[in-house]
Amino acid sequence: MKWNAHSNLRINVDRLAARIEQLAQVGTTRLAFSDADRRGRTAVMAMMREAGLNVTIDPAGNILGRRAGQIEAPVILFGSHIDTVPHGGRYDGVLGCLASIECLHTLQEADVSTKHPLEVVVFANEEGQLFPGLSGSRAMVGELDPSELLLRDASGRTLSQAIESIGGRPDRIEEAARRRGDILAYVELHVEQGGVLESLGAPIGVVQGIVGILYSHVHVLGDTNHSGTTPMALRRDALVAAARFILAVDEAIRRHQFCTVGTIGRLDVLPNARNVIPGEVSMTLELRDLEEERILRTFEYLRQRAAEIATSSRVQLELVERERFKPAQADRAVMQAIEAAATLLDLSTHTMPSGAGHDAQMLARIAPMGMIFVPSAGGISHTDREFTSIEDCANGANVLLHTILNIDSWRMRS
Amino acid sequence: MKWNAHSNLRINVDRLAARIEQLAQVGTTRLAFSDADRRGRTAVMAMMREAGLNVTIDPAGNILGRRAGQIEAPVILFGSHIDTVPHGGRYDGVLGCLASIECLHTLQEADVSTKHPLEVVVFANEEGQLFPGLSGSRAMVGELDPSELLLRDASGRTLSQAIESIGGRPDRIEEAARRRGDILAYVELHVEQGGVLESLGAPIGVVQGIVGILYSHVHVLGDTNHSGTTPMALRRDALVAAARFILAVDEAIRRHQFCTVGTIGRLDVLPNARNVIPGEVSMTLELRDLEEERILRTFEYLRQRAAEIATSSRVQLELVERERFKPAQADRAVMQAIEAAATLLDLSTHTMPSGAGHDAQMLARIAPMGMIFVPSAGGISHTDREFTSIEDCANGANVLLHTILNIDSWRMRS
Repeated sequence: MKWNAHSNLRINVDRLAARIEQLAQVGTTRLAFSDADRRGRTAVMAMMREAGLNVTIDPAGNILGRRAGQIEAPVILFGSHIDTVPHGGRYDGVLGCLASIECLHTLQEADVSTKHPLEVVVFANEEGQLFPGLSGSRAMVGELDPSELLLRDASGRTLSQAIESIGGRPDRIEEAARRRGDILAYVELHVEQGGVLESLGAPIGVVQGIVGILYSHVHVLGDTNHSGTTPMALRRDALVAAARFILAVDEAIRRHQFCTVGTIGRLDVLPNARNVIPGEVSMTLELRDLEEERILRTFEYLRQRAAEIATSSRVQLELVERERFKPAQADRAVMQAIEAAATLLDLSTHTMPSGAGHDAQMLARIAPMGMIFVPSAGGISHTDREFTSIEDCANGANVLLHTILNIDSWRMRS
Repeated sequence: MKWNAHSNLRINVDRLAARIEQLAQVGTTRLAFSDADRRGRTAVMAMMREAGLNVTIDPAGNILGRRAGQIEAPVILFGSHIDTVPHGGRYDGVLGCLASIECLHTLQEADVSTKHPLEVVVFANEEGQLFPGLSGSRAMVGELDPSELLLRDASGRTLSQAIESIGGRPDRIEEAARRRGDILAYVELHVEQGGVLESLGAPIGVVQGIVGILYSHVHVLGDTNHSGTTPMALRRDALVAAARFILAVDEAIRRHQFCTVGTIGRLDVLPNARNVIPGEVSMTLELRDLEEERILRTFEYLRQRAAEIATSSRVQLELVERERFKPAQADRAVMQAIEAAATLLDLSTHTMPSGAGHDAQMLARIAPMGMIFVPSAGGISHTDREFTSIEDCANGANVLLHTILNIDSWRMRS
């Protein structure tokens, strides 16, 4: 491996562990733009300075920690986010940010210089708890429309005010956008948030892409009526029809495997009283797959099944597409750089899709992208019960370190 | 029909229609013990006085309008309730009360004397919107425990205070109780609240009994998890298991006809978010039948099905009985008195169970009971869209009138 002259280099596990602990002490509910989020950001910026990085905040509020290279550009970018869902646990996003800082701290201490400038990024508002979908990574790829800065959260604050409150410059939001070619590659280390790596006993996941998602609203309209006085034959029970549709989704995915996963996560019954036949049911349908074509075919199939159920159950059953996110493919060369790093470290890998969305999905629009997963105990995520062992965290950080060095040694691509 | 000397007697349809309209003008949301309920009660008491009745309020807040008979006791009792669910429509309960007053007004005008005293009752709190299950009819059969007077509604008011606010005497609640033998028969005219009479084209329903009800809580416990990162094979989706159970109930009742009706009216999902696999589902199960044995057998069968679904879906699925109401059979002689009245009036009848609960269910515990149903348009009930034509209302009132006269002519039973 001539293109990695520092194969014995390893990150400082204790320092990484201490920093994960330090951020957890800020609290694991750090909704983007909240006081807790700001305290977390302050702590992370201090860590960046300890690592010898030049710290700036871009106009979208993304924190950047830069280490110069032998050339000015393009930059190798890596990082994640530190904002959370409520009680979001200590690893989701955080691990990617703190491991990235640790990698640069390690290079700094070992006095290793790189050809390309290296940049850690802590993206603003990835979880989007107050401003859904309006992430800092979206601004970085130039897809945050300035008109969206006027959107308000539940408290009435605009996104513009929120970005200002974390040191961004909403008036210059366009300057947060990077252009194709600015970034040699974007790499993100993240906890898997699923149980696949644990069940396989694989310490490292090499992400082949981030699934696309289709969200649909499902509405069932029957007849609200008295449960005691309406014979079964005269009923148009919206919940019974909804149950048939739920099982149709389960069958389409689990048996026919039309797409990777399909979920009805939300269901509301009207009027929802024990002695009233449900007249109306609203549900969400979510379909995910690495190939958008498979999502669309599944949706089409479920539309047909819905029509059949509507007829047999004498109800109206309507599917309305609400949102669609395109899949993002990982870059082959970045995946190979990750594989090579894992091989160097003697860590087995499993190639897999990311079922969850990540900032990497945005970055893939303007740069070669890759992601490294480490196991989540029990596949548990978005809760304080989230856990990844420090060994797994350190493995991920070391794979990230050597992935960066591998990418740094790329010959200029044509 | 020697025992009905007044076979040409008919109620005054216009007066009945005007009184139904008058009560509707008070508003069709008259929750028991509310200001609107009190206004309705005042209007009804005025109507009773117009009909020449002696008006009193019993200690439980039931309004009584009495017309003396040739003997002191036992009394023939008939009536219903005027309290409503929110936007409860203009016929539910009201028709039984106003038709009862109309019957006595008609007898008064025709100067017809009866052997037995006749008593119209307007029961308090039948719908139980603020104090569920604590009805005036329950007090009349001596089954309201004085300790229940201390129960509070959502606003903090006790039942005792509520009963006082409508002129009752909670301190003497036991005196509201009648004893077996006090009441020769209890008859209640009510809108069907279902679509059976309309679909059969029958103007009069003769109720054979009021169904018993079993309420059960159904709890499904699976695993809450990220919908994107958890493969189908690793899921324990509580909603998919709940859907299987909903269809098992539908199949047990609709196909196997284990009991008359079965309903899952309420269903709540936790955490109920579009991108989270449902970890928990709570449902209500309601089973109704004229025979308690059939209800219990159905429940037992569904317990077994629940256990099978729990195993195949890898969730916990538990049924917990919450409340059970025994069926109440109508009295044969009262049913015959109703049939004879309908025959006299040349109205066809359909013998049927009452799927809904009524004050008559309580009264059946201490007196021979019977109910007369008239059609509900479209089977629609408990909404402002409830409708029964004035012809159907008048038919019901005339059947009630002649049922009372028929019962009055009963020979003393052994």
